[in-house]
Amino acid sequence: MQALVFHGPGQKSLDDRPKPALLGPGDAIVKVTRSTICGTDLHILKGDVPTCRPGTTLGHEGVGIVDAVGPAVTSFKPGDRVLISCITACGRCEWCRRAMYSHCTTGGWMLGNSIDGTQANFVRIPHADTSLYPIPPDSDEEALVMLSDILPTGFECGVLNGKVQVASSIAIVGSGPIGLAALLTAQLYSPSQIIMIDIDDNRLAVAKRFGATDTVNSASGDAPRQVMALTAGRGVDTAIEAVGIPETFKLCEDIVAPGGTIANIGVHGKKVDLHLERLWSHNVTITTRLVDSASIPMLLKIVSSKRIDARQLITHRFDFSQMLAAYETFAAAADTKALKVIVEM
Amino acid sequence: MQALVFHGPGQKSLDDRPKPALLGPGDAIVKVTRSTICGTDLHILKGDVPTCRPGTTLGHEGVGIVDAVGPAVTSFKPGDRVLISCITACGRCEWCRRAMYSHCTTGGWMLGNSIDGTQANFVRIPHADTSLYPIPPDSDEEALVMLSDILPTGFECGVLNGKVQVASSIAIVGSGPIGLAALLTAQLYSPSQIIMIDIDDNRLAVAKRFGATDTVNSASGDAPRQVMALTAGRGVDTAIEAVGIPETFKLCEDIVAPGGTIANIGVHGKKVDLHLERLWSHNVTITTRLVDSASIPMLLKIVSSKRIDARQLITHRFDFSQMLAAYETFAAAADTKALKVIVEM
Amino acid sequence: MQALVFHGPGQKSLDDRPKPALLGPGDAIVKVTRSTICGTDLHILKGDVPTCRPGTTLGHEGVGIVDAVGPAVTSFKPGDRVLISCITACGRCEWCRRAMYSHCTTGGWMLGNSIDGTQANFVRIPHADTSLYPIPPDSDEEALVMLSDILPTGFECGVLNGKVQVASSIAIVGSGPIGLAALLTAQLYSPSQIIMIDIDDNRLAVAKRFGATDTVNSASGDAPRQVMALTAGRGVDTAIEAVGIPETFKLCEDIVAPGGTIANIGVHGKKVDLHLERLWSHNVTITTRLVDSASIPMLLKIVSSKRIDARQLITHRFDFSQMLAAYETFAAAADTKALKVIVEM
Amino acid sequence: MQALVFHGPGQKSLDDRPKPALLGPGDAIVKVTRSTICGTDLHILKGDVPTCRPGTTLGHEGVGIVDAVGPAVTSFKPGDRVLISCITACGRCEWCRRAMYSHCTTGGWMLGNSIDGTQANFVRIPHADTSLYPIPPDSDEEALVMLSDILPTGFECGVLNGKVQVASSIAIVGSGPIGLAALLTAQLYSPSQIIMIDIDDNRLAVAKRFGATDTVNSASGDAPRQVMALTAGRGVDTAIEAVGIPETFKLCEDIVAPGGTIANIGVHGKKVDLHLERLWSHNVTITTRLVDSASIPMLLKIVSSKRIDARQLITHRFDFSQMLAAYETFAAAADTKALKVIVEM
Repeated sequence: MQALVFHGPGQKSLDDRPKPALLGPGDAIVKVTRSTICGTDLHILKGDVPTCRPGTTLGHEGVGIVDAVGPAVTSFKPGDRVLISCITACGRCEWCRRAMYSHCTTGGWMLGNSIDGTQANFVRIPHADTSLYPIPPDSDEEALVMLSDILPTGFECGVLNGKVQVASSIAIVGSGPIGLAALLTAQLYSPSQIIMIDIDDNRLAVAKRFGATDTVNSASGDAPRQVMALTAGRGVDTAIEAVGIPETFKLCEDIVAPGGTIANIGVHGKKVDLHLERLWSHNVTITTRLVDSASIPMLLKIVSSKRIDARQLITHRFDFSQMLAAYETFAAAADTKALKVIVEM
Repeated sequence: MQALVFHGPGQKSLDDRPKPALLGPGDAIVKVTRSTICGTDLHILKGDVPTCRPGTTLGHEGVGIVDAVGPAVTSFKPGDRVLISCITACGRCEWCRRAMYSHCTTGGWMLGNSIDGTQANFVRIPHADTSLYPIPPDSDEEALVMLSDILPTGFECGVLNGKVQVASSIAIVGSGPIGLAALLTAQLYSPSQIIMIDIDDNRLAVAKRFGATDTVNSASGDAPRQVMALTAGRGVDTAIEAVGIPETFKLCEDIVAPGGTIANIGVHGKKVDLHLERLWSHNVTITTRLVDSASIPMLLKIVSSKRIDARQLITHRFDFSQMLAAYETFAAAADTKALKVIVEM
Repeated sequence: MQALVFHGPGQKSLDDRPKPALLGPGDAIVKVTRSTICGTDLHILKGDVPTCRPGTTLGHEGVGIVDAVGPAVTSFKPGDRVLISCITACGRCEWCRRAMYSHCTTGGWMLGNSIDGTQANFVRIPHADTSLYPIPPDSDEEALVMLSDILPTGFECGVLNGKVQVASSIAIVGSGPIGLAALLTAQLYSPSQIIMIDIDDNRLAVAKRFGATDTVNSASGDAPRQVMALTAGRGVDTAIEAVGIPETFKLCEDIVAPGGTIANIGVHGKKVDLHLERLWSHNVTITTRLVDSASIPMLLKIVSSKRIDARQLITHRFDFSQMLAAYETFAAAADTKALKVIVEM
Repeated sequence: MQALVFHGPGQKSLDDRPKPALLGPGDAIVKVTRSTICGTDLHILKGDVPTCRPGTTLGHEGVGIVDAVGPAVTSFKPGDRVLISCITACGRCEWCRRAMYSHCTTGGWMLGNSIDGTQANFVRIPHADTSLYPIPPDSDEEALVMLSDILPTGFECGVLNGKVQVASSIAIVGSGPIGLAALLTAQLYSPSQIIMIDIDDNRLAVAKRFGATDTVNSASGDAPRQVMALTAGRGVDTAIEAVGIPETFKLCEDIVAPGGTIANIGVHGKKVDLHLERLWSHNVTITTRLVDSASIPMLLKIVSSKRIDARQLITHRFDFSQMLAAYETFAAAADTKALKVIVEM
């Protein structure tokens, strides 16, 4: 079969690889039909993710058809159409019982990281019963690829952790795919004000189309002042950090209202300054989270009932043979205006 | 009347001052019968609190007897025995409706800060209906002085914000009066492990007496390792910061378990490092809060029903004429082993 | 001034009455500009509400302009445009501090019940600071009349108590004004399925227009079977009772899923059967509530930001001189298809 | 092996039965070392539980040693000491993901009901990974038998569902084993008042010893008046129904305060009256629940850390050969004052 393989920093290729085999009784082999590329895949290629060793097939998103299951798998059988969660969960350990699947003692983010991933014709899924999800008949499979990672991440790390509430005001710092996923799912709770912040006017225009009530271009440096003006000097109830650098986290600190929440989604490479000399008395909450994907069943219902149009996130489509072009397009998002690309196997 | 007046950094004296008069229709004048000194009073004397101008009577804690009320006061009448909250609340603004009294638009921490406080024979209390609390008959008034500030602070900022839960593990960094207040009130939720951390063995011995299951002296520098050993390598579900310096906040970051909470109580003078490069995926929550004192009615029931012995916090007693000696004793806590001092007017 | 006065069961008239005067320091007099009629007013006229004595001016809904305030009122001044809550709240008692304003020890449902109400040119509002709400400039006052009672009732008693959640399934039994108010506000939480149940096809057609995903006419008697068919045999996560008779409560018991909630809004005149012989092991929750109107500030934001079109509930408009005709139209809703009527003073 | 077998209403015997064998890949066979008898076992013997067919081995509580495991079991191996949950849970279905294990689509209350139970030398446990719990070394196994059912039931159905809170007032109607289990676990949340109600003075004396602050003998018929007197006319925040008949449920309706909760634990054989004509405006919550046993890991920590002395519930001990005498003693609790009996295999 074909697989997109990481060969060390800066190096990847579409290789011939043996089809994976069942290793444990709870494993399933899934024939991948559609996958996509994540910003995290680019991090790996930069050499930022030491847990991913050269030789690993990348990818942790996708939908497909069950090809084979181990003897302990009871929820799926060959031929079933499934959504693959980016997070592998045993369903049994302390963390899984608390729905913190990302910290599963024998799971977590494994696919395309510590084991071979979904950018291949076939993938092995450990703990299949609790890491795959049945796809409703007649589903739009392209839309469902957005449920492997990006929508649960925006929703769980941004919206749920950020305690977005009816009639509240929120700001999302970063209008890339993950910020837009937070924007789409935040609207499930009917906030009265959604301010999107970015340095790219094109992305802000997309945000407006996706439902932002206001946009702020932070390149000018006075984003805090603009947000305060938009909120009558009060700040926002929820500030969602969807970039991952000290400057954007600082911006969240500057605009969060008393009693508000900063929900961090961004993957940070270095520490940030937390201004407790001001915030100690501000009654704020700061949260971090690696997506647990516990919201997938709920988001499946939401996407099926058309309350969110997940396809809006898809800007480009490629055949698997064009996988290297797909990476190029996705990596050059500023030029190509790519959000999510669909790769069809 | 007599009042302990702040005269600028390092300067205070017990002065003759006119008895306060009613200024607004919702005011009450309270004859103070017992007060105490807070660590914040020492901060003011160091010159760290610019909102408190020279000439202000200090003190934001105490019990007393209502002397006079304005025409809008309906809950109290002269002769009523009352507990004074350190936080003044109008009960009407957006923040008060959310029980965030510390952010009341016409209240908050005013006593002994922006207006004259309780270290005096009489004190004026704005918004009396929602800033005073009736004292049950036959109450132990010394114990109730602990409800003006220190117990609500430990409880709200540490225990409630820290989401202390039945059977959870918690660590409290700082075993001074505020850390001990958190320790006393944390036990209301029956955590299975309470680790107290300090650099003073005497305070750790007090903590053990107050209910700590384990103690760690952090002077040696290996507190994180010790806490990990005590928690089977897992860390604590709740880490309460009760000091207010970067080192102790860092310690909390080092020992919080995945899914856990760092609840900051400490008053910080400078920023701290937030290690998001590690914590971004750790599913943690960090909270800050200035006490709202919304828990006073509940704590009144708890202290009245003897589930907490608030008197344990009282180590010294003074007559008001000895107020300067009371300050000396409290300020030299390392030597005097003072926790809270009671001043009788 | 003119006032619609209750003169005992079956009797009412539009009378000349003296303009009300301030009685307490916290009172306000409001010149009513628009009011409406509630199903509860009809209950009073049937003689079902013994707390409302003959001679009382009816009405507990409306908007207007502050005419005079007592000396303790600090949030409003003459000339301010205000929304009148159906619930009077002191903001100080135990219940008010818990936001259970309907149980305020010196308030609750008083207007048009134990004291004169809003179907008059002027009305006295006790506890004005915490019972009136400022109206944003340029508001649609007709829409805001829906915030005095009906939208908060549908939202608090039905949606909040019913724990309506993103992607959940809900059924609302009763498609009258209050059921429709629940329907409008339930959509703030993006449930994936909203089944409206009534015996009147016209009302079900209205419900469909208001956002119901499915409708069931329960006249046939097999509503439970139909709801089970619509929910794949599972039942609904939330069943909202918006009628107030044993049969409709029974229907809710029949269709609630395990783990689900029955939220009662209906005013019941007699006891109902609770089938604990089946439900004891069903993990269900049943709630009751008299509206507290604590959600008014939030709903003001929602209506102002156009996330709900409250005007949809208004079917008829009358001048105050036609007040008796307004009652006739509202009472004959089955024929007139009236939902809410606006009366302009 | 020996097993206590149900042979139809009124009939049981200690029979020779074949040792159970593994049937599914997720099964375990456990050698039972200690078990007990539940009130539900008596219900089965009365013929009240049609799901339990003649020929079934009774019992759903116990501790033991793993004897054999199927190929899919990863958390346990032969020789491990385990606690058996009364509820069997797959850990995968919608209900299990919501921790509603009692409604597991392939589990729930099976042991001693739809499949052979624990009153035998060996028992087969389906879904072993998620239905057994490892026992800490050096545990008091007698105490842990109380964690199979009775303590989780009192805690989950009574205390958690009843939202027992710090400083709240609670009443528990029924001072039998299950009411006492609620009493023991309620204290984990430090309510300020716990009123135990029963018609048996001996049981009330036991309740007092277990921590009740007040007791009321309801035989006289004026229990509501007494409870109101004890709560200053307010009623209780939480009323826990631990009997299962209409009269005791009615008592809970009579004594619940506005804003309070009635948490039903009792197994009801017939419907009850719900007095909505009074309660519709009372802001109350009523809950039902079959124990999910999701709290077992937490209660294991609590019992291990000695915050609850579960042994207090044990009044009698028997060897398995005396099983029929154990049943007699337990069934004649009024005379024998039996609470829980331990049977040693």
